Amino acid sequence: MTESYDIVIVGAGPVGLMLSACLLRLGPYNIKHIDQRPGPTEIGRADGIQARTLDVLQNLGLKRAIMSYNPGRIYEVAFWDASKDGTGIRRTGTSRSYPEYIDTRYPFSTIIHQGRIEKIFLDDLKDRRLEIERSWTIAGFRKDPCGEQSDHPLVVDLVSVDGRESSTVRTKYLFGADGARSRVRDLLRVPMLSKDPTMHVWSVIDGVVKSDFPDIQMKTTVRSSKGSAMIIPQGNNRVRIYVQVFPKNGQEPVAFATVPKIQQAANDILAPYKVEWEAVDWHSAYRIGQGFASRYSLDERVFIGGDACHTHSPKAGQGMNYGFLDAHNLAWKLHLVEAGFLRRSILKTYEEERKRAAAKLIEFDATYANLFSSSRPAGENNVAPSSEFVQVFKQNSLLTSGYGVEYPANSLTWPSTTSSTSTTALLPGHSFPTATVTRVIDANPVYLEQEIPFNGSYRIYIFAGKPVLTLKTIFDLAEHLQSKGSIFRRYQRKDIDTSYEGRHNPHSPFFTFSLVFHAPRSNIEIQECLPDYFACYRYHLYADDRELSQRGEAAEENAHVKMGFDVEKGGIVVVRPDGYVGCILELIDGRASALALDRYFEAIVPGSEHDAVAARL
Amino acid sequence: MTESYDIVIVGAGPVGLMLSACLLRLGPYNIKHIDQRPGPTEIGRADGIQARTLDVLQNLGLKRAIMSYNPGRIYEVAFWDASKDGTGIRRTGTSRSYPEYIDTRYPFSTIIHQGRIEKIFLDDLKDRRLEIERSWTIAGFRKDPCGEQSDHPLVVDLVSVDGRESSTVRTKYLFGADGARSRVRDLLRVPMLSKDPTMHVWSVIDGVVKSDFPDIQMKTTVRSSKGSAMIIPQGNNRVRIYVQVFPKNGQEPVAFATVPKIQQAANDILAPYKVEWEAVDWHSAYRIGQGFASRYSLDERVFIGGDACHTHSPKAGQGMNYGFLDAHNLAWKLHLVEAGFLRRSILKTYEEERKRAAAKLIEFDATYANLFSSSRPAGENNVAPSSEFVQVFKQNSLLTSGYGVEYPANSLTWPSTTSSTSTTALLPGHSFPTATVTRVIDANPVYLEQEIPFNGSYRIYIFAGKPVLTLKTIFDLAEHLQSKGSIFRRYQRKDIDTSYEGRHNPHSPFFTFSLVFHAPRSNIEIQECLPDYFACYRYHLYADDRELSQRGEAAEENAHVKMGFDVEKGGIVVVRPDGYVGCILELIDGRASALALDRYFEAIVPGSEHDAVAARL
Repeated sequence: MTESYDIVIVGAGPVGLMLSACLLRLGPYNIKHIDQRPGPTEIGRADGIQARTLDVLQNLGLKRAIMSYNPGRIYEVAFWDASKDGTGIRRTGTSRSYPEYIDTRYPFSTIIHQGRIEKIFLDDLKDRRLEIERSWTIAGFRKDPCGEQSDHPLVVDLVSVDGRESSTVRTKYLFGADGARSRVRDLLRVPMLSKDPTMHVWSVIDGVVKSDFPDIQMKTTVRSSKGSAMIIPQGNNRVRIYVQVFPKNGQEPVAFATVPKIQQAANDILAPYKVEWEAVDWHSAYRIGQGFASRYSLDERVFIGGDACHTHSPKAGQGMNYGFLDAHNLAWKLHLVEAGFLRRSILKTYEEERKRAAAKLIEFDATYANLFSSSRPAGENNVAPSSEFVQVFKQNSLLTSGYGVEYPANSLTWPSTTSSTSTTALLPGHSFPTATVTRVIDANPVYLEQEIPFNGSYRIYIFAGKPVLTLKTIFDLAEHLQSKGSIFRRYQRKDIDTSYEGRHNPHSPFFTFSLVFHAPRSNIEIQECLPDYFACYRYHLYADDRELSQRGEAAEENAHVKMGFDVEKGGIVVVRPDGYVGCILELIDGRASALALDRYFEAIVPGSEHDAVAARL
Repeated sequence: MTESYDIVIVGAGPVGLMLSACLLRLGPYNIKHIDQRPGPTEIGRADGIQARTLDVLQNLGLKRAIMSYNPGRIYEVAFWDASKDGTGIRRTGTSRSYPEYIDTRYPFSTIIHQGRIEKIFLDDLKDRRLEIERSWTIAGFRKDPCGEQSDHPLVVDLVSVDGRESSTVRTKYLFGADGARSRVRDLLRVPMLSKDPTMHVWSVIDGVVKSDFPDIQMKTTVRSSKGSAMIIPQGNNRVRIYVQVFPKNGQEPVAFATVPKIQQAANDILAPYKVEWEAVDWHSAYRIGQGFASRYSLDERVFIGGDACHTHSPKAGQGMNYGFLDAHNLAWKLHLVEAGFLRRSILKTYEEERKRAAAKLIEFDATYANLFSSSRPAGENNVAPSSEFVQVFKQNSLLTSGYGVEYPANSLTWPSTTSSTSTTALLPGHSFPTATVTRVIDANPVYLEQEIPFNGSYRIYIFAGKPVLTLKTIFDLAEHLQSKGSIFRRYQRKDIDTSYEGRHNPHSPFFTFSLVFHAPRSNIEIQECLPDYFACYRYHLYADDRELSQRGEAAEENAHVKMGFDVEKGGIVVVRPDGYVGCILELIDGRASALALDRYFEAIVPGSEHDAVAARL
């Protein structure tokens, strides 16, 4: 008997682990997860978690585990350049990591090395009874002759790294998260498009230092006459230093960049300051090749993600972050297709959305890396003017924070139909803005965008304005959501689940409603404000009372105002399970709003000619 | 050979555990910790952690463990009374748990049952290699004939609860945290002073409920014609309900208040609303006797704390909180006396400070409990007017939050000598106010009051105003702190510790300095702003840059302004190791400030006729 799986995941670095972690939150998926390494990463490698990524990890319930390590937090970046008199280096400026126009709960980069990140995921997966199988790799795959008619349309050949064992399994999906030299990508014969022919060589060293350099505990870029370096504080007195090195043609970077050579180069660049190493935890060296894969998928059955799809200079600290978001983007789509809630063609949006995001990042990354790396250790004239460098850094902080990612209009993302101004934080294809509101049931102030855990549900937020003014609209909306022909009625389970455990999804695992009234909490009575349909969502009922508070917060902190909605009339936001805004609707006429919601979902659920509503429901 | 200990602790409830947890953070103390129960509390009992207590637990590094349970958070209290038409109950008002004039990071009560609290402490103690010895109790104690000349002046007789084993040990100190029926207190022949002769009887039940009562997830007080109740949400859908019950004279409360009887009483009081119990985790019943012990100590060798010293109505949720702070208050004093930094007579301040705090609380508690409990299930006329009840609640919220505790002027607490106005949050004998500042070394925004962990050190904060204006004063201050005859020089270790691990105490475990400049972070250069003496505290150097930020925070958030200091000239605050303000000094003349600091410490360190500086230093 050939073993059958829902998915085979190749590679247990952060990206592969993320996909398993996401999927096991969505259903009891049967996953075969292999890795060619004999064990997980112990130390070093990727180390930066950007703010948007931290939001996503928090939504998965993993933020607390990350923070328990007391990781480094980068709030500010310092820029140092060769001093004009040629005697050393001087600070030319500083910049906040996340300027004020970036809407984030966490205006810092979190620095924690890949060994710890992998451990957090492995512990999580162990709790969910998934163990990674090592040391195995993929030998090949083929389609089942019955094609899509088969329950498991893929046949995958696996082989142990020592070549002694092999195994053939059947699967519905195959995901390659096997890094820059991806075997899955090779099997797909997908070429990498290189954006940056210059191959800079960088070395990196982690450890404990003693130094008189004033910004040794800051993220710092240094461009001296002796070359370039970057300092990354890792928390708990540990520091990472990247140093540009210059091996001869054909010389392997790792062989060239010994620990003493990296340390010497760092001291040359930072002179007249000195760095002494009390301990070295890890070091490495590599050529930077920027590029991205021409395709991310084969027939929406085989996918690749992370470094297998896009490689970057490590300087912007983005590789792992974009990889995490690849897996996150794919997971809920696979789940909703398999659960019978989304039509199969939606899987095409994975490549569409994530390739565009990677391309934009690489465009920036190439600019940034070229500005940062001087081509050789020469004088000032080879170095880009400092002001341009700082400017590029600032302009691109939206992109590096993760909040700058914008998904294009497609069946999942509707262009805005409301008249909200450009100053609003709420935009289709962008992540749902942060908003602090008061939960009615227990008067707790909560982060609205984090209230629903990553569970595969579409999140429909009804900003319901003033209760007295919208009462009729809300009752009408509820009536039409339940009317014959409504997609919400079609996907509603037979017995409404009013338990505490089922509080996020009383009607269906496919969608959930939240209602936010612009009123003081104590004025909102569930019995009076809500039709029975919405009363099922008593844990998702909020008071948008910030403006009314006496703490003197600015009116912009009011959630209605922040979203660009009228505080009396409100509006509706459809948010995808991954936290990106699908569409923004008016809330004027209950019937019209219900129809608009129907239209959005009708275009993405399986058509009548396609799959029926799945049995899993 | 008789075993010898630094301290014998009797009772491993929250208060006893707190003392062990505190002491083991201060030194390698040899503790014998016994408890008469066969195991720790599993569930129920005390459950409320007030905001000031949470600050203290955070300073011990225990907040994260508490929050990992996702405890209930009470932000608001609802008041319900009998409705005037006699048909049931109605909400008469709501109040924030922590009104805006309370300066706290955590404006909520944290609800977590005693089983979890004890587990958090037991795990912490296990990591520090202390195990509680069960089931043992104290049989008696006597003084060593050599008295204070002896290394271990106390001889303690212990006996196992089953009477089969006994043991005699020698110890320096004995602490009784053995509850309201304290055996240690009995051995000391210390009487309880009863404040409240009325013995109300309350029952309590914990579990999972289904209810149509709108405020079932809120802290709610209900005073109906059928009696009084209180609802406490415990998080994760669990609820506690206190119900007043009326056993006959002589009838034991626990025997009377069966689960069905408590449930029936709750439904009677809450009618017309209904409460159904899906699960019952725990229940109990007891008479409330308010009172406090006439003495807390015998010769500063034997101490009692927690319920052994003061008992309360559980309604204000204070018992455990005041008990924690008893242990916290005692721990650092014992440590600094044993380490040779404080004169022995300082131990008298334990009773002086904590008895006064308890007396004040009990005064409030009696008022509150009487207002809350109607003497029998009768009509409205037995119930205090609602407005008075709400008024008392609000007036006393400073006391229940923990921030209202004020230690009297004594050798540890100097009356203010500066001209700061009454609006300032900084007052001698009060807890040091919260202040968010930017750490210079890594640009992290930090909670100033939490930067130094509970480590037994006196914390001297120099609010240094504008660097250009105070530069000379700061250099003068440093010079005089190191001058011959300075107490700081006397207690300075021979080799200054500039390691990361020693960052809080480069000069001495007795004291540590922090410097807060009113300037943007990037303008503060350690090499320029600081004399060598203060440069050792590079991890304690802060920019008070809130006012200068562009986020639009109010000027009151500036730390200098909040403390009541001139933003140009600054000032000095001496904070005790437990976070209470010892004295407030001007910063005008460096020599004068150094002398004032000297005077404060000279009055509390061992006199020349007393103990010499201990060898431990």
